[in-house]
Amino acid sequence: MYKRNGAQTVFFDESPYIRAFGSTAGSKEAEGPYGRFFDATTSDVYWGESSWEKAENKFVKEAIKTALKKARLAPEDIDYIFAGDLLNQCTGTSYGLRDFYIPYVGLFGACSTMGLSMKMAAMMIDGGFAEKCCAVTSSHFCSAERQFRFPLEYGGQRPPSAQWTVTGSACVILDKHEGSVRVEAATTGKIIDKNIKDANNMGAAMAPAAVDTLLAHFRDTGRKPSYYDAIFTGDLGRVGKSIVVDLMAREGYDMEIGYFDCGDLIFSESQDVHAGGSGCACSGLMLCAHILPKMQEKELKRVLFMPTGALMSPTAVQQGESIPGVAHALSLYIE
Amino acid sequence: MYKRNGAQTVFFDESPYIRAFGSTAGSKEAEGPYGRFFDATTSDVYWGESSWEKAENKFVKEAIKTALKKARLAPEDIDYIFAGDLLNQCTGTSYGLRDFYIPYVGLFGACSTMGLSMKMAAMMIDGGFAEKCCAVTSSHFCSAERQFRFPLEYGGQRPPSAQWTVTGSACVILDKHEGSVRVEAATTGKIIDKNIKDANNMGAAMAPAAVDTLLAHFRDTGRKPSYYDAIFTGDLGRVGKSIVVDLMAREGYDMEIGYFDCGDLIFSESQDVHAGGSGCACSGLMLCAHILPKMQEKELKRVLFMPTGALMSPTAVQQGESIPGVAHALSLYIE
Repeated sequence: MYKRNGAQTVFFDESPYIRAFGSTAGSKEAEGPYGRFFDATTSDVYWGESSWEKAENKFVKEAIKTALKKARLAPEDIDYIFAGDLLNQCTGTSYGLRDFYIPYVGLFGACSTMGLSMKMAAMMIDGGFAEKCCAVTSSHFCSAERQFRFPLEYGGQRPPSAQWTVTGSACVILDKHEGSVRVEAATTGKIIDKNIKDANNMGAAMAPAAVDTLLAHFRDTGRKPSYYDAIFTGDLGRVGKSIVVDLMAREGYDMEIGYFDCGDLIFSESQDVHAGGSGCACSGLMLCAHILPKMQEKELKRVLFMPTGALMSPTAVQQGESIPGVAHALSLYIE
Repeated sequence: MYKRNGAQTVFFDESPYIRAFGSTAGSKEAEGPYGRFFDATTSDVYWGESSWEKAENKFVKEAIKTALKKARLAPEDIDYIFAGDLLNQCTGTSYGLRDFYIPYVGLFGACSTMGLSMKMAAMMIDGGFAEKCCAVTSSHFCSAERQFRFPLEYGGQRPPSAQWTVTGSACVILDKHEGSVRVEAATTGKIIDKNIKDANNMGAAMAPAAVDTLLAHFRDTGRKPSYYDAIFTGDLGRVGKSIVVDLMAREGYDMEIGYFDCGDLIFSESQDVHAGGSGCACSGLMLCAHILPKMQEKELKRVLFMPTGALMSPTAVQQGESIPGVAHALSLYIE
């Protein structure tokens, strides 16, 4: 429980269970290598709504509904919902959650939100404050592009280091008593800023934060990367992933084998997404479509899941600021 | 600990202490009725920085430094920092916290953040995951106006229901073992949306959420408003406060006596702020400058502190959406 001497990792006394999970995704994600594993997909970027932002709300709402249905639970069975997203004022979340009327803890962790929300949910359950919690996040390519970069109509060119914001939402239900995969431990990240200023190179901005949390996790637990059957970072993409491998090697940790990045996996090379996927939904969707199913099939039994976030503000970048990053790690296992 | 049957309130087994707190504020706040109680104030809206946003980062940084100094603690003594603010991507927080290198949980609760962050910190301590946590928030009139409403240079007129965003930051340090005022219980709010669409009437948008959390708190605890020496809402202002009094009366709760709103208190009528103060810093500054000192002097022994947040997005409002609200309540006491 209580972490001593500056440790950032807590072990859960009664590892909370992942009881159910639901995912919704857009057409590009549906056409990718994991497309058939999402619970619901749509070929309409608006999903029948009048704006991309309202579509994102619907992705959230449907992901939550799906997870609740799979868990055979009603909204009133959930003690807390932990959620956040990339949009200003986290509107994907605020409007997506509005109809469920569940006690709400709003989070801001950018693309680390899937990790942050699951970590807080696990702490809340293990701390004795809850039995059932939802962890939710979302992103949408169109709403993110116009908020963070250029109007889509402008047709801006994207450099090779750019990533493609994933469209979709993921909801994971954690339960004190029931489920399959369990959360064993969590490492909370710090804000790390290595002076990266390129809004088209989020992988490089996040990689130092990923390394910082990985080092803290291995230091706190005395483990090596090989302890885990697989390690998944969130959305570093191909550029950020290779930086992590390099920086970890310098620190004496071999990440060449068994290390994957959700942003590197979610689209195929032929989908022309440059350095890979990004966005809050990237790690959320890969968790629901790949990591958790593979754990349930016991192909993977011990996994370190570490979503990464670039705390990138267009206003701050315009004012010459660099881009801070953060990463939160969860140790998952199945018996 | 665990709340049953849909209750939203948790009682802490070992009520965590408030060990120290620090506040920084701008000139308008310094000229207000509580101006002399802030730890540091500046007459420069830039506080020597090159932008309002960077000034907000400095307000955050100085508030944390002040609280740490008063607590005789170093950043490495803090297990977690819970923080968020009003700016897009919570940049007041991300950049303000960057130098402290403390495990970070980013929150988005708009102006409810002081309550949300203290609640999460108290849960983390009482749940056995931490001994010392910081809860931090900030807002800045100039950065908020240009983000949420109009460029300041435009000189837009403000209707009587408009409120004035408070400039400043507050940091509260919670400790398992040491302090004076204690956190006894916390009620987590739900997202409540009663279809208010006027971005110049945040009080009306937040009042239904305030009422929802108050009703949950009184239902869960079996208490009446008179149990508390004082009840403080966050930044409903004069319009929102009167709505709360009316709606609570309809539910059979008398809020005429002993109920205050931080937004109603922080500026004097002569300061021409129309319906009062608002912003994340509003309840944070009143907590540090008035509520906690009065509790330490034992003029107030039982207080319900309930910051309120309007989850208002200019994009969503432009798309015809209404403004959801949320409110989180903390029961504070001193022996």
